[in-house]
Amino acid sequence: MKKIITLGEVMLRLSPPGNQRFFQTHSYDVEFGGSEANVGAAMAYWGMHVAHLTAFPDNEIGWAASGQLRKNGIDTQFIAHIPGRMGIYFLENGAMQRSSQVIYDRAGSAFAGFDGKELNWDAIFDGASWFHWSGITPALSKECAELTLTCLKQAKKRGIMVSGDLNYRSNLWKFGKEPHEIMTKLMEYTNVFIAGTRDFKQCLNEDFKNFEQAREMAFDRFENLKYIVKTDRVSHSSSHNSISAVLYEKKKSHSSKTYELTHIVDRVGTGDAFAGGLIYGLLHLKPKEAIEFAMAAGAIKHSVPGDILLCSLQEVQELASGEAVGKIKR
Amino acid sequence: MKKIITLGEVMLRLSPPGNQRFFQTHSYDVEFGGSEANVGAAMAYWGMHVAHLTAFPDNEIGWAASGQLRKNGIDTQFIAHIPGRMGIYFLENGAMQRSSQVIYDRAGSAFAGFDGKELNWDAIFDGASWFHWSGITPALSKECAELTLTCLKQAKKRGIMVSGDLNYRSNLWKFGKEPHEIMTKLMEYTNVFIAGTRDFKQCLNEDFKNFEQAREMAFDRFENLKYIVKTDRVSHSSSHNSISAVLYEKKKSHSSKTYELTHIVDRVGTGDAFAGGLIYGLLHLKPKEAIEFAMAAGAIKHSVPGDILLCSLQEVQELASGEAVGKIKR
Amino acid sequence: MKKIITLGEVMLRLSPPGNQRFFQTHSYDVEFGGSEANVGAAMAYWGMHVAHLTAFPDNEIGWAASGQLRKNGIDTQFIAHIPGRMGIYFLENGAMQRSSQVIYDRAGSAFAGFDGKELNWDAIFDGASWFHWSGITPALSKECAELTLTCLKQAKKRGIMVSGDLNYRSNLWKFGKEPHEIMTKLMEYTNVFIAGTRDFKQCLNEDFKNFEQAREMAFDRFENLKYIVKTDRVSHSSSHNSISAVLYEKKKSHSSKTYELTHIVDRVGTGDAFAGGLIYGLLHLKPKEAIEFAMAAGAIKHSVPGDILLCSLQEVQELASGEAVGKIKR
Amino acid sequence: MKKIITLGEVMLRLSPPGNQRFFQTHSYDVEFGGSEANVGAAMAYWGMHVAHLTAFPDNEIGWAASGQLRKNGIDTQFIAHIPGRMGIYFLENGAMQRSSQVIYDRAGSAFAGFDGKELNWDAIFDGASWFHWSGITPALSKECAELTLTCLKQAKKRGIMVSGDLNYRSNLWKFGKEPHEIMTKLMEYTNVFIAGTRDFKQCLNEDFKNFEQAREMAFDRFENLKYIVKTDRVSHSSSHNSISAVLYEKKKSHSSKTYELTHIVDRVGTGDAFAGGLIYGLLHLKPKEAIEFAMAAGAIKHSVPGDILLCSLQEVQELASGEAVGKIKR
Amino acid sequence: MKKIITLGEVMLRLSPPGNQRFFQTHSYDVEFGGSEANVGAAMAYWGMHVAHLTAFPDNEIGWAASGQLRKNGIDTQFIAHIPGRMGIYFLENGAMQRSSQVIYDRAGSAFAGFDGKELNWDAIFDGASWFHWSGITPALSKECAELTLTCLKQAKKRGIMVSGDLNYRSNLWKFGKEPHEIMTKLMEYTNVFIAGTRDFKQCLNEDFKNFEQAREMAFDRFENLKYIVKTDRVSHSSSHNSISAVLYEKKKSHSSKTYELTHIVDRVGTGDAFAGGLIYGLLHLKPKEAIEFAMAAGAIKHSVPGDILLCSLQEVQELASGEAVGKIKR
Amino acid sequence: MKKIITLGEVMLRLSPPGNQRFFQTHSYDVEFGGSEANVGAAMAYWGMHVAHLTAFPDNEIGWAASGQLRKNGIDTQFIAHIPGRMGIYFLENGAMQRSSQVIYDRAGSAFAGFDGKELNWDAIFDGASWFHWSGITPALSKECAELTLTCLKQAKKRGIMVSGDLNYRSNLWKFGKEPHEIMTKLMEYTNVFIAGTRDFKQCLNEDFKNFEQAREMAFDRFENLKYIVKTDRVSHSSSHNSISAVLYEKKKSHSSKTYELTHIVDRVGTGDAFAGGLIYGLLHLKPKEAIEFAMAAGAIKHSVPGDILLCSLQEVQELASGEAVGKIKR
Ligand SMILES: [Ca+2]
Ligand SMILES: [Ca+2]
Ligand SMILES: [Ca+2]
Ligand SMILES: [Ca+2]
Ligand SMILES: [Ca+2]
Ligand SMILES: [Ca+2]
Ligand SMILES: [Ca+2]
Ligand SMILES: [Ca+2]
Ligand SMILES: [Ca+2]
Ligand SMILES: [Ca+2]
Ligand SMILES: [Ca+2]
Ligand SMILES: [Ca+2]
Ligand code: NI
Ligand code: NI
Ligand code: NI
Ligand code: NI
Ligand code: NI
Ligand code: NI
Ligand code: NI
Ligand code: NI
Ligand code: NI
Ligand code: NI
Ligand code: NI
Ligand code: NI
Ligand code: NI
Ligand code: NI
Ligand code: NI
Ligand code: NI
Ligand code: NI
Ligand code: NI
Repeated sequence: MKKIITLGEVMLRLSPPGNQRFFQTHSYDVEFGGSEANVGAAMAYWGMHVAHLTAFPDNEIGWAASGQLRKNGIDTQFIAHIPGRMGIYFLENGAMQRSSQVIYDRAGSAFAGFDGKELNWDAIFDGASWFHWSGITPALSKECAELTLTCLKQAKKRGIMVSGDLNYRSNLWKFGKEPHEIMTKLMEYTNVFIAGTRDFKQCLNEDFKNFEQAREMAFDRFENLKYIVKTDRVSHSSSHNSISAVLYEKKKSHSSKTYELTHIVDRVGTGDAFAGGLIYGLLHLKPKEAIEFAMAAGAIKHSVPGDILLCSLQEVQELASGEAVGKIKR
Repeated sequence: MKKIITLGEVMLRLSPPGNQRFFQTHSYDVEFGGSEANVGAAMAYWGMHVAHLTAFPDNEIGWAASGQLRKNGIDTQFIAHIPGRMGIYFLENGAMQRSSQVIYDRAGSAFAGFDGKELNWDAIFDGASWFHWSGITPALSKECAELTLTCLKQAKKRGIMVSGDLNYRSNLWKFGKEPHEIMTKLMEYTNVFIAGTRDFKQCLNEDFKNFEQAREMAFDRFENLKYIVKTDRVSHSSSHNSISAVLYEKKKSHSSKTYELTHIVDRVGTGDAFAGGLIYGLLHLKPKEAIEFAMAAGAIKHSVPGDILLCSLQEVQELASGEAVGKIKR
Repeated sequence: MKKIITLGEVMLRLSPPGNQRFFQTHSYDVEFGGSEANVGAAMAYWGMHVAHLTAFPDNEIGWAASGQLRKNGIDTQFIAHIPGRMGIYFLENGAMQRSSQVIYDRAGSAFAGFDGKELNWDAIFDGASWFHWSGITPALSKECAELTLTCLKQAKKRGIMVSGDLNYRSNLWKFGKEPHEIMTKLMEYTNVFIAGTRDFKQCLNEDFKNFEQAREMAFDRFENLKYIVKTDRVSHSSSHNSISAVLYEKKKSHSSKTYELTHIVDRVGTGDAFAGGLIYGLLHLKPKEAIEFAMAAGAIKHSVPGDILLCSLQEVQELASGEAVGKIKR
Repeated sequence: MKKIITLGEVMLRLSPPGNQRFFQTHSYDVEFGGSEANVGAAMAYWGMHVAHLTAFPDNEIGWAASGQLRKNGIDTQFIAHIPGRMGIYFLENGAMQRSSQVIYDRAGSAFAGFDGKELNWDAIFDGASWFHWSGITPALSKECAELTLTCLKQAKKRGIMVSGDLNYRSNLWKFGKEPHEIMTKLMEYTNVFIAGTRDFKQCLNEDFKNFEQAREMAFDRFENLKYIVKTDRVSHSSSHNSISAVLYEKKKSHSSKTYELTHIVDRVGTGDAFAGGLIYGLLHLKPKEAIEFAMAAGAIKHSVPGDILLCSLQEVQELASGEAVGKIKR
Repeated sequence: MKKIITLGEVMLRLSPPGNQRFFQTHSYDVEFGGSEANVGAAMAYWGMHVAHLTAFPDNEIGWAASGQLRKNGIDTQFIAHIPGRMGIYFLENGAMQRSSQVIYDRAGSAFAGFDGKELNWDAIFDGASWFHWSGITPALSKECAELTLTCLKQAKKRGIMVSGDLNYRSNLWKFGKEPHEIMTKLMEYTNVFIAGTRDFKQCLNEDFKNFEQAREMAFDRFENLKYIVKTDRVSHSSSHNSISAVLYEKKKSHSSKTYELTHIVDRVGTGDAFAGGLIYGLLHLKPKEAIEFAMAAGAIKHSVPGDILLCSLQEVQELASGEAVGKIKR
Repeated sequence: MKKIITLGEVMLRLSPPGNQRFFQTHSYDVEFGGSEANVGAAMAYWGMHVAHLTAFPDNEIGWAASGQLRKNGIDTQFIAHIPGRMGIYFLENGAMQRSSQVIYDRAGSAFAGFDGKELNWDAIFDGASWFHWSGITPALSKECAELTLTCLKQAKKRGIMVSGDLNYRSNLWKFGKEPHEIMTKLMEYTNVFIAGTRDFKQCLNEDFKNFEQAREMAFDRFENLKYIVKTDRVSHSSSHNSISAVLYEKKKSHSSKTYELTHIVDRVGTGDAFAGGLIYGLLHLKPKEAIEFAMAAGAIKHSVPGDILLCSLQEVQELASGEAVGKIKR
């Protein structure tokens, strides 16, 4: 069983039930989610050993958060419980032409002040095959940026694969550092980029004519880089999207099928499900199969409420191969 | 801030949750709604000063009704609380090919017996720019028909704009008057008609070959008339409609975009949201922009549970201009 | 009022609310359903006298089950309450490309051990016009297979029409008998088969090139056979199917419209609603009208939560004739 | 199996969930209840044949009402579905020192206009042993007062026992008749009165010093009278009451235990459960046992949500005999 | 109609439904509450004109908060919507011997940074009779402490009555000021103290042998002081408390009844309901009646879910006078 | 951190929400529980390392069960997922005088057929300090009885403490063995008995005059026996019990306080919480403190919904020492 290490904040997700708006709700559905843990949880459901690194407040809500990760199969033994508040995000699910809305309330969270000084790196990376990070973590605070770099150095020291979802978020990065100074360094330790043109522009503070140009630059500049992965999404409405993805190697590329996604249930975490599928695929399959598996994982996530994929290996494989779509399985 | 006056009954709306039928439900979701208050609430959410005229029973359910209007931003200071029962409508949301069903239980309501004799017209119309009524109110009772006429005279006296949603309802009009006798008179005080061919036929008790003919007659006959507005809806199913609208001036017309509405959440109150958008548009925008704004308001209402629009100015403007449809806004 | 007799197990149906997965649910919605009782309940809602034959455990859950059938209009006076457990099926509603999942937990149920020895056949069949069974019942146990045969003989003795939904289920038939030995016999007493090619193959343990060949064989071999009915379904996804049906007489056939079913609410019991519509149609209408009525019943069931149709005669008739689709009825 | 006939209105009961107030609720729990049908349903749950006489609107809500009675075991074959509205009562459950509140919205209901002219009295009373009515029904309308009298005459003609819950309600009786004119006549046909001092005063329009005096007068004046039953309740708070009852024969009396009722779940329908227990007791037990059984039925109803008792014979018997109180039964 | 001004933070209250613990909940019930607004809302429900001063974030959750205050009858025209986050408190309702738990997450809220510089004091205090503050507000931040003092000076300038709920909270006061420096000053402007011995000790940084001594000191030292009010509570468990209160004038005192509170529904906001009752009482009643009215208001609040009293004048008066406790009002 | 091993079946618990009866519910709340896992989960919440031994079906419901145990902090690595069904118990919560009802539906479960042949005993018991079993497990099947004995031998081999909750259940033991033959043997390996007089009688098939006699016999006969623990419960009603406990050593005994438990939330699992507290106490405290800690754990469980204690060490300690009962902790 492959062991995967993921790093990142996990927030309390509060969303009005069904199609209600923030203004009218009288209750919030409770989930816990965060990009990197979502990636890990997708794989934990497939039986992989996934250990997540994060920090929660040392109170009942923090304990509920780690309990929920544990339920989802994540190894929570390295999670710290420290003073601070729980990061929160309020999610109003979009419907039809109406967009989804996210209100972040994550400033001052326990994780944002977490320096990871007491982590036992040998125990964490013992037997690990892969490390995954995203561009959200270094954007949160100086401590988080440094912790990300430390993780990457630990991963490199042990020669394991590293993926990074560059995922530039302009409303973060408030602690006084230029994103590109930090991101460029982190990208050097990374073997797989999940990124689009805008991410490359912002993370590197450079302008690119198009994705093609950005991609070429990246393969030239980052010598550890082995794959770039890009997803394409067309939003007809909040209830109807179409998506596909491409996996680029230095010299060739592999395109997935396009999925027509109508009757969307939950749009959040679909990129994370894709990333989980990608890591699984690159560890077990050939590149072409890997990108198909990843895209099927991302597509089927749109049908599952919450941040987490919660679909079996068999369900993803069947969708990737076009079997058993929309049946009643008895 | 523009001040708008609206008049009409607000009912307790009881609907089975989700897709349940009346026969199988074990609870009812509670909303409060009525055509004219829905029109006002759409605008109140955009920051306009909207005062609604109505009467509620002087009991806890009546107080809950006025509290809910107040939450939605409506100025409730002129609402009367008097003896009588609360008008109710039971709504079963349709789905797929199955139609929605409304069971009205509004006979004998407090509002139906409300004569408005103690209303302070100067206070009500102080600073007002617009008055809105619908063809439902005069159909309820003799008292309501007279109250509507009184309001129209008060509005005319002050020279403010008046819109009327003609909205002929054949299962009302039970108090012994011919609709056309009353409606014709009310229409004379009105500057904007929201009406289709059937409404013109019934309200005037005349036959028209088509909408064109009715429209010409109306501009000829009603000298205060400035605009006629008509919406067109095609119902593929309860879950999928397409809609558009046209604004007619005497000599020209302005057509909106057509919206393809799939995955409909709540069909009720969409015409009222449109009317709210129309009044807002005619007060702030050019005619072509006004009809686009109105239609965007009507379209996005299909995604919001309850009778009321509850979408911000920015959301409606973005939809009218085709931006940010179906995204995740962070 | 026509009287119909149905026979079969009714299970407790437990399904996670909305789109939740088994892994994440914290409550189950409760329904009661079973293929043959679903057929009967559709007709009971249309005012027919439907008596269902089954057995429930003699405990509070069994009493709730018979109470629910009674609410749905079924005559429960012949239902036995005996020792044993309640059969259960867990249903996870599919959405989008994700399939629905059913986990059966019906082994050892009260009904599986029910021999019906104390049933009063004269009382049951007094005034009856039709008997309906399905291929699920004889598959459950030796007792159930014998009870089905007894019913068929009772029906034949009285010369009433018999319909059978052949509905082969490979994961049943565990009591040591060959399906075709039993099924062939039961089919001999049956006037209407609801069956597709696979059902014919399994029930008769023969191979057929196509449906055409199976159908011809059936009309040749079963002399009581008057109609064969086959439905066709294309599953684009769990949320979008298209369906149609054909009614075959020996010498001619009648095809229904095709329904495009988007925004599916509940896929379960749609075949049973179709069968209920078919029996009603064959009792009251001409064959062409009957198959249209049946298919409309099956189509509109997709919009109703639970196993049971719960739509009025008028609603089905309007859909069959293409009126009033997706409106608001006031 | 004894057959019991009951007569009376059944209303839609709408109550905010849990301890919420009308002002703050966003949904209503749905039940159906009415005094006399509640009496009948208690006995139907014990296996007696109970036929209820009433009228419901001929719409989906009316059909849901009769379906619910049927689920609860009541024989609904004589219930009429006629034009009119559904009577409603809004119930806010009290808690602690805060009282429960009922808002009646029953004027103009289908039942209030029901004359029962088409009822088949021979079919209704075939095999019947008991008829039960309450003082609510004649108070609703002239039609209802006459229908009550008709029923009493039909019962008398067949020599069966009649019980009447005198239950004077001052806010009814609005159709222009003096209560005592009507009530006195109805009481003459009645063998068992459930009544307190206030009921005697109002129904007979006489003053009594105390219950003793009223009771003596009643046994003197009403020659068919065999039993008078009176309950006593002390309300410490909405959550804590104590209750007991006495059964009077002409010459002697039988007192029940006193029940200390803390943690009350639902106070409504407890008198009806008592009346159901009383009728059952007088049909099957000796007077002393009957009043104990009745009081146990009334007491345990306080633990069941809704209007209806829904407790088995065994549960009531065990409570009456003091066994198995507050255990876990496995 | 008396006008009352209140000042203070209103938070989003998130509580697991029923008796669930934070660790196990899957949804949060949503309320909005804050000590001083709760005081005001109690009185607004009794028809008084209550204007609340606070600041909310300028986002959908902030708008929902002011909408909810408006529903509850509060004049929200002076509420500011400014950048910042919504203060939150998580509430786990206690039950039996298990305590309730509150997790505050209010640091960095919009209100904590609110300086009120743009408030129009003349408009706010126009027609006002009373100003109410609590010891929570000055504890939040330097800005809040200064804003409280400004309000008190504005109130004094206009000669209106001022009440202060001293309510010392040791886990606030983190902005570097000594509580007693600020509190002593604020107390000088205040005519009514709601305080116990501990509050006096902390607010004045002095030691007192007992309440008697503290009270004497207070009347000596604060020349504007007219009343001191103290409540006494005994907690047998989270579900069972007993409470009473005393109103002290300089030379005499008035004690309320003691309420035995079993089956507690919601313990939060009961002191605020008491304070609302006290202000109402001191404005309309004699001191002895005032303290009885206040204590009845505080007692009956334990039966209402949420932070707010939501009981009518009549309900409080009846409880104060011992009438109609725990009945069914029809 | 102490490591504890527990063995036993964990069932799906389905209970109607709130106070509803089986007959009336439309949903079931979902929990997972079983006596021995409940014991372990109480301790896992206090930070102990608890590994549970059981088997679940190899389907989504089985995976949800192990996920839930994991969330609750239990080490699930030794849990088997094998063919079979999930054991179920239906729980209707009692209220007032009405008893709780449990309907077991556990026959043929995966666990009942589990022989544990592939368990790695060295890994399981590595570092373990305690093993806990109950009398339910050997009663389920021959396989389960043998597995219990195997565990006890493994525990003895390693010299760790063993506790057994004798808990005789007469409706189990259906596989053909005499209970006392099996139980006597298992008791020989056990150091702590949790048992009352009835348990001793049934497990040993002997008659005892009273507990005193049974206890003396036990200390004489079972040489490994160190403690006997007995709880006493008086059930005034389902909502009000009082409980206490005694810990017996061979020569002395320690009695706990008596807890008066009113407003009971969930009666199930309270004995298991007590047992968890007892094991914790015997591992960390003196006997007198241990029995007080255990009884506090058992008492406070009555306030927590579900089978599991979910209270912190501090909460139990505070209750044991009489601090902070029924407060609001901020
Ligand atoms: Ca949601
Ligand atoms: Ca969602
Ligand atoms: Ca709805
Ligand atoms: Ca809706
Ligand atoms: Ca469902
Ligand atoms: Ca469903
Ligand atoms: Ca309720
Ligand atoms: Ca209730
Ligand atoms: Ca929950
Ligand atoms: Ca609460
Ligand atoms: Ca429950
Ligand atoms: Ca429970
Ligand atoms: Ni959704
Ligand atoms: Ni609310
Ligand atoms: Ni949808
Ligand atoms: Ni919907
Ligand atoms: Ni129900
Ligand atoms: Ni849809
Ligand atoms: Ni849960
Ligand atoms: Ni859908
Ligand atoms: Ni559904
Ligand atoms: Ni609402
Ligand atoms: Ni309660
Ligand atoms: Ni209730
Ligand atoms: Ni509660
Ligand atoms: Ni959950
Ligand atoms: Ni309670
Ligand atoms: Ni409860
Ligand atoms: Ni239901
Ligand atoms: Ni309670």
